[in-house]
Amino acid sequence: MSAEQTKTRILDAAFREFAEYGMAGARVDRIAKNAGCNKNLIYVYFQSKEALFATVLDQHFTDLYAGIPFTPGDLPSLARRVFDYAQANPDTYRLLAWATLERTAALPPAREREHHRALPLIQAEQESGAIHTDAPPALILMAVMALATAWSPAFPFGTTANPATDLSPGTIRDTIADMVARIVGQVSAPH
Amino acid sequence: MSAEQTKTRILDAAFREFAEYGMAGARVDRIAKNAGCNKNLIYVYFQSKEALFATVLDQHFTDLYAGIPFTPGDLPSLARRVFDYAQANPDTYRLLAWATLERTAALPPAREREHHRALPLIQAEQESGAIHTDAPPALILMAVMALATAWSPAFPFGTTANPATDLSPGTIRDTIADMVARIVGQVSAPH
Repeated sequence: MSAEQTKTRILDAAFREFAEYGMAGARVDRIAKNAGCNKNLIYVYFQSKEALFATVLDQHFTDLYAGIPFTPGDLPSLARRVFDYAQANPDTYRLLAWATLERTAALPPAREREHHRALPLIQAEQESGAIHTDAPPALILMAVMALATAWSPAFPFGTTANPATDLSPGTIRDTIADMVARIVGQVSAPH
Repeated sequence: MSAEQTKTRILDAAFREFAEYGMAGARVDRIAKNAGCNKNLIYVYFQSKEALFATVLDQHFTDLYAGIPFTPGDLPSLARRVFDYAQANPDTYRLLAWATLERTAALPPAREREHHRALPLIQAEQESGAIHTDAPPALILMAVMALATAWSPAFPFGTTANPATDLSPGTIRDTIADMVARIVGQVSAPH
């Protein structure tokens, strides 16, 4: 196995381990065993458990942003894509939730970059009149992300609060997109 | 110290410990030390770490629901109260976030009771025409809770994404209430 292949196996095993147990609960022994490599190699390649967590988190958020085009002029459609991504990749959301809750883990630079890029684009849509709310751009982005990810097994007020729900993913996606449309004033009147 | 006083001290220390470290990371030794009692007493009174977590979680959610009157006919105002509560009690939100993420912990019966009570009341407001959206009641409640708690240090897309924000609590509260008003169709037109 080449060094690159080994690194990839370590990153994959680390992603599953961190998503399941968080930073504090993750065990480097278990990551090594699941990656089929020597534990020392993990320290050689990634320095520490903390640095490995930060690497995995940033990698997955870089992938996430690359996979979800940011459309400031059509935030309901952005919400649909984020919803689909969160449903298909629950462990990515769990990783960020652990990082936030444990506070010890570095938050992903990829998210900070995306954030700084997104806010002026939202503001430009407000100034052009395509977004009909004068809410601060940071709160508009927060609302889209909060609503689109709320129906996730890792979110306290979503599916865990409704274990017996009979709502289909399509209904939930449509409803969330409609809520975002209302927030940014892209519906002409309440129905 | 009476048995009741000891129990109260244990519950207080357990709340701080669980909010900080979650279920897996919490140490009964540390809870005993901070409560100023013998570790064995914790097992006598609360059986296990798991049962103690469940007790603390349910107690704090019972307090939460008692402290926030549910007003299905005025959900923007409910969002304001939930926002204020979440800002004033970040550890209560952390406790629920841990329970959701760790999955091992029992979710609070108080929340399930509140949920079953709230949904028909929201539906009644929809039928009477006071809520102008035909979104499923479970998703309306989810949206209120998601938006009202999103600006919390334990929520991944809120304040942690905006560490350098200059938004005041009043601005955030007003914006969230306005977003909820738009979702339930209580604004006549976009501004």
